[in-house]
Amino acid sequence: MLDDYMNWERYILKTPADLPDRYNYGGRVYEISQAERLYVAGMGGSGVIGDLIRDLSMVRDWPFEVIVVKDYFFKGKSGLMIAVSYSGNTAETLTAARLALERGIPVIGITTGGKLAEMGVPIVKIPKASAPRAALPQMFTAALWILRRIYGVAFDLPEVLPYDQKLAERLERALSARPTVVAPSSMQGIAYRVKNEANENAKIDPSVEILPEAHHNWIEGARGPIVALTSPDIPPEHKLRVELTLQLIPGELFDVSMTVSGILTFLKHVGIATVRIAESRNVDPLKTPRIEELKRRLPQ
Amino acid sequence: MLDDYMNWERYILKTPADLPDRYNYGGRVYEISQAERLYVAGMGGSGVIGDLIRDLSMVRDWPFEVIVVKDYFFKGKSGLMIAVSYSGNTAETLTAARLALERGIPVIGITTGGKLAEMGVPIVKIPKASAPRAALPQMFTAALWILRRIYGVAFDLPEVLPYDQKLAERLERALSARPTVVAPSSMQGIAYRVKNEANENAKIDPSVEILPEAHHNWIEGARGPIVALTSPDIPPEHKLRVELTLQLIPGELFDVSMTVSGILTFLKHVGIATVRIAESRNVDPLKTPRIEELKRRLPQ
Repeated sequence: MLDDYMNWERYILKTPADLPDRYNYGGRVYEISQAERLYVAGMGGSGVIGDLIRDLSMVRDWPFEVIVVKDYFFKGKSGLMIAVSYSGNTAETLTAARLALERGIPVIGITTGGKLAEMGVPIVKIPKASAPRAALPQMFTAALWILRRIYGVAFDLPEVLPYDQKLAERLERALSARPTVVAPSSMQGIAYRVKNEANENAKIDPSVEILPEAHHNWIEGARGPIVALTSPDIPPEHKLRVELTLQLIPGELFDVSMTVSGILTFLKHVGIATVRIAESRNVDPLKTPRIEELKRRLPQ
Repeated sequence: MLDDYMNWERYILKTPADLPDRYNYGGRVYEISQAERLYVAGMGGSGVIGDLIRDLSMVRDWPFEVIVVKDYFFKGKSGLMIAVSYSGNTAETLTAARLALERGIPVIGITTGGKLAEMGVPIVKIPKASAPRAALPQMFTAALWILRRIYGVAFDLPEVLPYDQKLAERLERALSARPTVVAPSSMQGIAYRVKNEANENAKIDPSVEILPEAHHNWIEGARGPIVALTSPDIPPEHKLRVELTLQLIPGELFDVSMTVSGILTFLKHVGIATVRIAESRNVDPLKTPRIEELKRRLPQ
């Protein structure tokens, strides 16, 4: 798994997504067009793709509204859906994708296989990794290539994701203290990913608070320490909220460039740091026994 | 403040919202019609109204999609906006409301006064309480009356919110243990409100995890205890997720009827329990010194 993170650049997809302009499903025609609203469905390591695309859509002012669906259900009646499921068999994502198709919303899948690959909707197939969460580069860049194909959005594609030992060590120290991860809403995908990696790899439970909302409630009960996220690329209102938080609550600040390169480089280090915390806690970063136990207890 | 919670029913609005079919703002005509998408903007004690309306729209299958805006910014280009600001002077909400109007999205305000009341958009004026968070019944029912007026949705309007001392004591005990509040996405407004009341009244910091997403990451790091929320009114998939969580992580289950009456009755007890925790911790439940400090440090 550490090897996956250390060589994450090999998972970055280099070729544009090959998508039809329209497709047939159940006797109905679905047009893939520049919808104003983009649903991105997915859970866990696949679901964070929606959060990251939402962050970028805000920071880069992309011409669509991202609605992240981490559930069986959603309320929308029109738009476009990207359904991300590493295994292709995630119950929530498959249910949400079927619901979309019933409502006439075109679905495009990102998966390694499973039921999603056989559903009959256009698919971008991605290579496997040691675990779904280690496959972030291929799922993320698959989604970006889909967005370039449909909306013409521009993005950078890194050749290398340079390793910075000091950053990995700083993250390891800061996350070991079971902090609250505090980020502005334009970086909430980064914050959720940090929490999720700490949960799954290190088996610890830091929480997340999003600014400016956290300044209206959490701040009164906050004890610290915090891991605060900021970026040169976010609105000044968001930067100021992060600065003010660190004036009141002790913690460490991490600066992330909100580019594909910056996001993947930072999250590579988060992966490495949380694997190292697992090692120092004598837990296996790769195994997720409670998630497996839940799957056994859910109806198949 | 305890007196406010104990007599919360007196804040329930009994009369329909008086709204025009259209209005003029800055030389432009805004039509108030049954938009597919409803933005509900607001922060903190006012912002939770959007979460609760979103919960009800899922549980009651109301014919619109709620998008909660707890920020200065949002990406939508069409729809309808309800802007909730107890004071009428919340910077984020005013910025979001102006952004909506620039994009041709009609705004309806809910406030006690301030700049929002003088903006020139239709307003439902609500009476003051001891604190913004104590004014939940009037903000919530103001939003419901607006939705009845526009979409014709039905809701119950309680005469009394019966006090159950055992429930208040159970909540006080469970929240004192600084738990993780775990709820299905159809009850996320209830979960956020529990956390926010613990933050502002009791000055403690429980975190929130939403199902089914939390079964894909948090569960691996979860230590407990948890405060789990369920309801007879939510989808079976959500009920099962709550049950499975309690099989793996120790905690207390609270059952909430997802009606106006059920929500207000439960949240009244949450208010009382968090005031009592404040008293036992020797902190003032009414004062929010860090929030006041932040306001001083922000540009006016």
